[in-house]
Amino acid sequence: MVGQSGGPTAVINASLAGVVREALRHEAIAGILGMRHGIEGLLREDLVDLEQESAETIERLRTTPSAALGSCRHKLSEADYERALQVLRAHGIRYFIYIGGNDSADTSHRLAHLAAQEGYDLRVMGVPKTVDNDLVETDHCPGHPSVARWLAVSVRDAGLDTAAIGVVDTVKVIETMGRDTGWITAATALARERPGDPPHLIYLPERPFVRETFLADVERVYKEHGHVVVTVAEGLRDERGEYLSASRRDVDIDRFGHAQLGGVGAVLCDLIATELGLKARVDKPGTIQRVSSLLASPVDVDEADRVGQEAVRQAVAGQSGFMVSIVRESDEPYRSALGLVPLERVANAVRPVPPEFIGPAGHDVTAAYLSYIRPLIGPPLPVYARLAGGRVPARPA
Amino acid sequence: MVGQSGGPTAVINASLAGVVREALRHEAIAGILGMRHGIEGLLREDLVDLEQESAETIERLRTTPSAALGSCRHKLSEADYERALQVLRAHGIRYFIYIGGNDSADTSHRLAHLAAQEGYDLRVMGVPKTVDNDLVETDHCPGHPSVARWLAVSVRDAGLDTAAIGVVDTVKVIETMGRDTGWITAATALARERPGDPPHLIYLPERPFVRETFLADVERVYKEHGHVVVTVAEGLRDERGEYLSASRRDVDIDRFGHAQLGGVGAVLCDLIATELGLKARVDKPGTIQRVSSLLASPVDVDEADRVGQEAVRQAVAGQSGFMVSIVRESDEPYRSALGLVPLERVANAVRPVPPEFIGPAGHDVTAAYLSYIRPLIGPPLPVYARLAGGRVPARPA
Repeated sequence: MVGQSGGPTAVINASLAGVVREALRHEAIAGILGMRHGIEGLLREDLVDLEQESAETIERLRTTPSAALGSCRHKLSEADYERALQVLRAHGIRYFIYIGGNDSADTSHRLAHLAAQEGYDLRVMGVPKTVDNDLVETDHCPGHPSVARWLAVSVRDAGLDTAAIGVVDTVKVIETMGRDTGWITAATALARERPGDPPHLIYLPERPFVRETFLADVERVYKEHGHVVVTVAEGLRDERGEYLSASRRDVDIDRFGHAQLGGVGAVLCDLIATELGLKARVDKPGTIQRVSSLLASPVDVDEADRVGQEAVRQAVAGQSGFMVSIVRESDEPYRSALGLVPLERVANAVRPVPPEFIGPAGHDVTAAYLSYIRPLIGPPLPVYARLAGGRVPARPA
Repeated sequence: MVGQSGGPTAVINASLAGVVREALRHEAIAGILGMRHGIEGLLREDLVDLEQESAETIERLRTTPSAALGSCRHKLSEADYERALQVLRAHGIRYFIYIGGNDSADTSHRLAHLAAQEGYDLRVMGVPKTVDNDLVETDHCPGHPSVARWLAVSVRDAGLDTAAIGVVDTVKVIETMGRDTGWITAATALARERPGDPPHLIYLPERPFVRETFLADVERVYKEHGHVVVTVAEGLRDERGEYLSASRRDVDIDRFGHAQLGGVGAVLCDLIATELGLKARVDKPGTIQRVSSLLASPVDVDEADRVGQEAVRQAVAGQSGFMVSIVRESDEPYRSALGLVPLERVANAVRPVPPEFIGPAGHDVTAAYLSYIRPLIGPPLPVYARLAGGRVPARPA
């Protein structure tokens, strides 16, 4: 039984493809079922037979964005866990593979625990997936390198846009995803080719947002370049730990108690316009950044596939209660191995961007961070023309 | 003398490359100068010598997004026109090529008029450029097919995202550019492969936005699919002709009197949450959509290059006061020829999406529109996997 959970990514289907292809290789596995919309589908017994899918469909999953089985964000009650186990038993399921983030690891961990309590032989394996890159005990998370590549290219292009038209559209704020951690926002630093290139300022939620410092930063860059490109995480918080912008509507609070964020870019544009008198506009690519397939990192696609395969192999080999992790072996050429980490350690834990990756002034990133992220995003970005721009001497009228 | 004006695009540099390469072929042309930030650079005599650029740089311009010379939005005073002519005279300029939209066509037209009045032999040619696709008397505008391709791919991916996670993130509103016309928003229809695919609802500014109809539309789609993807133009207006969302800040009014728009997506999310109790989030890709180079339409790159070349050829051949236009010759295979249209007719005119391209209910697009746009966006989009999804029968517990 396999399912996908949490926010879709560019490569979560590559993990599904890895699971299915590997499962087909094992005689111990008599059938491959998929849960529609993750654990919700299991509870409803809304299951699909993945063995009926053609080899072509499975291969194509590798480059198909979003979650083909459907996804969910469902916090299970005690009764839900009982029901889940009941459905697994009814279908004779012995291997449970759940592709997701830390909420999903928690779900898998509890399910494994209940099965053990009830003496039902169920091997549970987690497959890491999150654009947020905030799972503990893995070098990085499948899904993240692709959003990093998307932002590297898109912020570079949007930065060139501001360099050209900054004479009128002076400040651009690009709001990225990142509720609790700044991994996604940090990746916008990849847009730079040379010192002084946009983004000029990068703010991560790991550091409190200080209004006065921010305005001084923006003004300084404006005086130096005549235009400013700022990237910010949606989850920026002020010195009291309050989100700069969070919805208070009941409908926007999810079942894990997370408030829907967004709008911090608009808040900052207002601040810049009001306090500095500069025209500011926001780009908020939203979900497009996390699922875009055409800029998926090939490293990411490959690893997502491999962690899916590994979860099946380890389950068949007798392991249970682990998430497959990625262990970096070398940077040039980039190579990774796979490891195992107890689901319990991953469950509900969050890995923030560490201090050594955050610039000394409390914003921006360090060279150490760039060394970490660069090998993950695949081939170099395309090279753009830069005019030499030889000046023509003025002539008397 | 060549310059770039208005909002940058993915292909305005391809037009610059076309101008430079063609100019190098003509003995009548002794030098090629570029204005930094368009007409503002001319007024400041901030000029670069484009003959010094390497052939490699010029070739690379074809695939370099944004405006390499810098751009501007500058409305000239009478004194400005005098000054512009003075600088052109001082440098012995006989050909003036301005790449831009309808504001730029107006500038070029007035400059040509002044030169004629003063008996200075200046040949002025306009090169069309606008993601908005709203220039009159041309089949389409370079820059637009690339934003259309970007949105086709990105809205398709974001639509798959909602199909997967719509069980919790129910409504997605994607706000596209498009202040006065709906061409950009209409292109989101290209994201659909099959009937019922997202986007489910498309709203263009050519039709007044009616709150009640909108809410009824969203509710109907929600009942049918369980999730809703809506695309809207930033320039939606209500029945009184007022923008649903426009900044009133002085700093946001540009020199042509246009108010900076944006935020209509957020306004609609609020409306949906408040009135329908559905969770709604906005993706607002902003300037990223207009400059993204990696999804540029190859048809667009080619045509942008050709209209640049043609402007030079026509100027050398003695023409003046025209914009190069694109004339569609056939759809399959797609072929276009180039024509000329008086700058005066293009200046400050706007071509809305015509009624035959807008769905009968006042939103969405027609088959005729899809026939118009499809050939322009280049090769077919990549094919994604769709699970057959054979259902597994329920089993007694």
